[in-house]
Amino acid sequence: MGLSNQWNRCASLRCLFLVHSSWKNDSKFTIHHSWNRHLACHHIGRAQKWSYKNRIPVITFSCLATDVSSKSDNKITPRSEDYSAWYLHVIQAAQLADQSAVKGCLVIRPYGYAVWELLRDHLDKLIKETGAQNAYFPLFIPQSFLSKEAEHVEGFAKECAVVTHHRLRLNTNSTLEPDPEAMLEEPLIVRPTSETLIWNMFQKWISSYRDLPLCINQWANVVRWELRTRPFLRTTEFLWQEGHTAHTNAKEAMDKAKEMLNVYTQLCEELLAIPVIKGCKSPSERFAGAEETFTIEAMMQNGWALQSGTSHFLGQNFAKAFQVYYTDTSSQEQLVWATSWGASTRLLGALIMTHSDDIGLVLPPKVAPIQVIIIPIWKSQVDKEDTLRVSQKLLEQLKGAQIRAKLDDRDYIRPGSKYFEWERKGIPLRIEIGPRDVVDGVVTIASRIGNQKKYALPCNESLTMHIQQQLENMQRCLFQQAKERMDSRTFRNVSFDEMKRRLNEKDIQKQGFFLVPWKCNAIHEERIKAETKATIRCYPFDMQHLVKNEKCFYSGEPATHMALFARAY
Amino acid sequence: MGLSNQWNRCASLRCLFLVHSSWKNDSKFTIHHSWNRHLACHHIGRAQKWSYKNRIPVITFSCLATDVSSKSDNKITPRSEDYSAWYLHVIQAAQLADQSAVKGCLVIRPYGYAVWELLRDHLDKLIKETGAQNAYFPLFIPQSFLSKEAEHVEGFAKECAVVTHHRLRLNTNSTLEPDPEAMLEEPLIVRPTSETLIWNMFQKWISSYRDLPLCINQWANVVRWELRTRPFLRTTEFLWQEGHTAHTNAKEAMDKAKEMLNVYTQLCEELLAIPVIKGCKSPSERFAGAEETFTIEAMMQNGWALQSGTSHFLGQNFAKAFQVYYTDTSSQEQLVWATSWGASTRLLGALIMTHSDDIGLVLPPKVAPIQVIIIPIWKSQVDKEDTLRVSQKLLEQLKGAQIRAKLDDRDYIRPGSKYFEWERKGIPLRIEIGPRDVVDGVVTIASRIGNQKKYALPCNESLTMHIQQQLENMQRCLFQQAKERMDSRTFRNVSFDEMKRRLNEKDIQKQGFFLVPWKCNAIHEERIKAETKATIRCYPFDMQHLVKNEKCFYSGEPATHMALFARAY
Repeated sequence: MGLSNQWNRCASLRCLFLVHSSWKNDSKFTIHHSWNRHLACHHIGRAQKWSYKNRIPVITFSCLATDVSSKSDNKITPRSEDYSAWYLHVIQAAQLADQSAVKGCLVIRPYGYAVWELLRDHLDKLIKETGAQNAYFPLFIPQSFLSKEAEHVEGFAKECAVVTHHRLRLNTNSTLEPDPEAMLEEPLIVRPTSETLIWNMFQKWISSYRDLPLCINQWANVVRWELRTRPFLRTTEFLWQEGHTAHTNAKEAMDKAKEMLNVYTQLCEELLAIPVIKGCKSPSERFAGAEETFTIEAMMQNGWALQSGTSHFLGQNFAKAFQVYYTDTSSQEQLVWATSWGASTRLLGALIMTHSDDIGLVLPPKVAPIQVIIIPIWKSQVDKEDTLRVSQKLLEQLKGAQIRAKLDDRDYIRPGSKYFEWERKGIPLRIEIGPRDVVDGVVTIASRIGNQKKYALPCNESLTMHIQQQLENMQRCLFQQAKERMDSRTFRNVSFDEMKRRLNEKDIQKQGFFLVPWKCNAIHEERIKAETKATIRCYPFDMQHLVKNEKCFYSGEPATHMALFARAY
Repeated sequence: MGLSNQWNRCASLRCLFLVHSSWKNDSKFTIHHSWNRHLACHHIGRAQKWSYKNRIPVITFSCLATDVSSKSDNKITPRSEDYSAWYLHVIQAAQLADQSAVKGCLVIRPYGYAVWELLRDHLDKLIKETGAQNAYFPLFIPQSFLSKEAEHVEGFAKECAVVTHHRLRLNTNSTLEPDPEAMLEEPLIVRPTSETLIWNMFQKWISSYRDLPLCINQWANVVRWELRTRPFLRTTEFLWQEGHTAHTNAKEAMDKAKEMLNVYTQLCEELLAIPVIKGCKSPSERFAGAEETFTIEAMMQNGWALQSGTSHFLGQNFAKAFQVYYTDTSSQEQLVWATSWGASTRLLGALIMTHSDDIGLVLPPKVAPIQVIIIPIWKSQVDKEDTLRVSQKLLEQLKGAQIRAKLDDRDYIRPGSKYFEWERKGIPLRIEIGPRDVVDGVVTIASRIGNQKKYALPCNESLTMHIQQQLENMQRCLFQQAKERMDSRTFRNVSFDEMKRRLNEKDIQKQGFFLVPWKCNAIHEERIKAETKATIRCYPFDMQHLVKNEKCFYSGEPATHMALFARAY
């Protein structure tokens, strides 16, 4: 189909396309759809409605089919070429998530959600082991609640979704609009975090020292209005857990905040195979309303940091704001002490960026929804029956050993295409079973990582144990690989100029973390950020002994902390 | 403290109280707090702020402690006296949920949430077994999406939360308000259900018959603005799962809708011990946008019906609205066929109302977060050590057998108060271990239901098996009891006058379901509702053979269906 030379905006898919003069309602066409300038694919569409906006023709079109077979659309840009594009391509190719019709809001597709479920269930177990109990609090916060804690409102009022009406009506143009008669007396805020709601309830639930510690966790969706979004890493709505605890004394609260940071560390390192650096935030990077914020920071393959979990010592700020007192053992009224802590779907972004390669997604076996994919290979009907029979038997054997295995018996896709598809989805191990293998009583095994060649192994009972070991090795190996990267690219005692130079390098391999002596100073921090885009990720716990007698790498004054600088998501 | 004789409204807790002339900011006082006119308890409070609204003094007060020890506050109204009050008291006494500061929104407390987790995990497993995959879609729906399906918008535009701004600002009075400069171009609706969002994505995901059936499930919070709310049964925000499927043909979609109704039936009957009646809705009770709605209806102890799960055959309505086509085996484009189905936290309401009694909550063992509570009894320190040692050992023995057991070793509460507390929380079995029991090598067992006396059993390995059997018996017994109630109070072939008379009876025992021959007629349905408040709950599947040659109980015309009438939540 010939096209005119003018680019236009498509309202429903928010993409640019060329308008052809012969198009009319119900025209069928193929459309080139670009997502965040990086992803591209073809849709076969149907024009539904024409209109004009600022003299630019707008077609609302409906998509009939998306052509993902074209190789050029489907290509994953190498990391070295364009790291941001690579990240989006990996997500798209593995079908982890999709852009929704709502700005900044992601659709987590079944495969991505299955990874999240594994992560969530594991974290839920760890959290319950610390003695916290799950509960559920409302989605909406009365506007007045937000202002109760001065710093908290400062931090969250600027980026929130505000509900003002409780009904729509048809206006004279027969289109919908908020009904002016259904305006709320007090606007409601869609929760960006639930401290205020939860402390309002704690006020009702806490009266005696016997009610403490009170440790509550909530799995929920939260909304923070973001201008620039990136799948998983920064989205307007995201899923998370938020823990909120109340204690009789400061030490117990502080210990709880540290305990939860250790829980997140365990989750990242043991389940996700992501090594992290633990530390506390500089005052200017603290959570709005916290007296101390602890964080774990992971290094992505481009050397940027990703904050992967935070835990806050809130002092008595929220207890004061919501007047939460308890009666102590001597019948005196006391304000309670607080913590809060959270981890979110952003961890999926960390997971993708830590392990994946230029082929596509790589998943550590512990969070792989499918750990082993079995692919039977046949040409004749007899071969098909044989290989399917052996595959089915192996599938049951592996499932019996709690290995998450799947048999890909689709007969309309060639084995080569299946390999390609499952590699991009990051399945740790592939088992191929061909007619020859059936005769020889073996299977062929291929690993998603390393340069290992395929190899054959007898298809018997001991195969299960081999697979289990392979999965464990892979889990360890991925952690090791990430750990070595983080260690080798954490540059110590560099000068400010050296850091700046490195941060300007185009080669992502040259970038990393910068561990430097530092005199805590918010103004200098701001200046460094303006000049280099790098921020203090944390003051690492286990590095503070190195600060003795050191001078700040920026001001030359006596250093107060060892600071970890990096660019960050 | 003496009080004036004027009732006033408390803004923060939305309760009435008496103002005393000597009160001022920071006065401490005790307040009588009534919830929905039924629940009452005392709070020890502190006046924070005084203001006047329409000349009525308003105190914003903060609650320091809630006195739940007073027996009069803590009383559960008997069902026969006030069934609605009884329901609220049971929830309060068992600490299942609490009113939040947001109108119509519930806080699900840890104990209530633990029941929900058991229910949710079980249902999630059943849903996954049908081949559906979990995913997550955005909280917000663009306003324009809602209008795409004509009946759908009609059904949901009138009761939704509308987001119009993405930022708050401080106005000249230093209070927060939605920032006029941050008004959204198009308002967003907080999802009341996700058909529109999901069908917008299905348009992208479906292109060939090979993509079908596509079965997606989502666990999420949804919002429907309700004027009159009731904990769990009708709240502005609630938690649910919503399934959405796409098929190549009508039969497959219809079969899926029925399959999912069977899943809900299994959940209710096997896990929650709630017998249900399966059927389809009359046209006027259908889901907005559905061609057929299937439902399961349970009978509460007051004879009212509670819709406990619905499943919809959507025909091609949403496929048309969102232009979702697939290419069939002969390369022809076809519209897809659809279903949706959901079950929500309202099931917790059904659970409470089906089994609980005048003592408090009763939980079927399968959804009891604690199945066995062990209570050691001591007077001396030696007794304490002995009973605790035996209790601890028994606890581990039971836990080892996957029984959810808990040891209540609190030393500041007497055993009698513990019995009272755990009975109200519906724990199926209580095991008491006193010094005498330790000497005799026995434990004392008490069941939450039935008139069984306490009895002693040897504390050995076979105790576990006895407990397991007791729990299974109790599960079966609760189902049986509810089934007998439903059967005996489903009145058949009554006249309209007889139904009306029964529905006006004060004695809840006299109320129930009315199974009658009926000529399908929306106007008559409306009239009956106006006259008796009863609605058609469903046309029960397994009763339709009875309609032959019958006359409608209302119009006398030849009947088309056997209809089940009842008042409903």
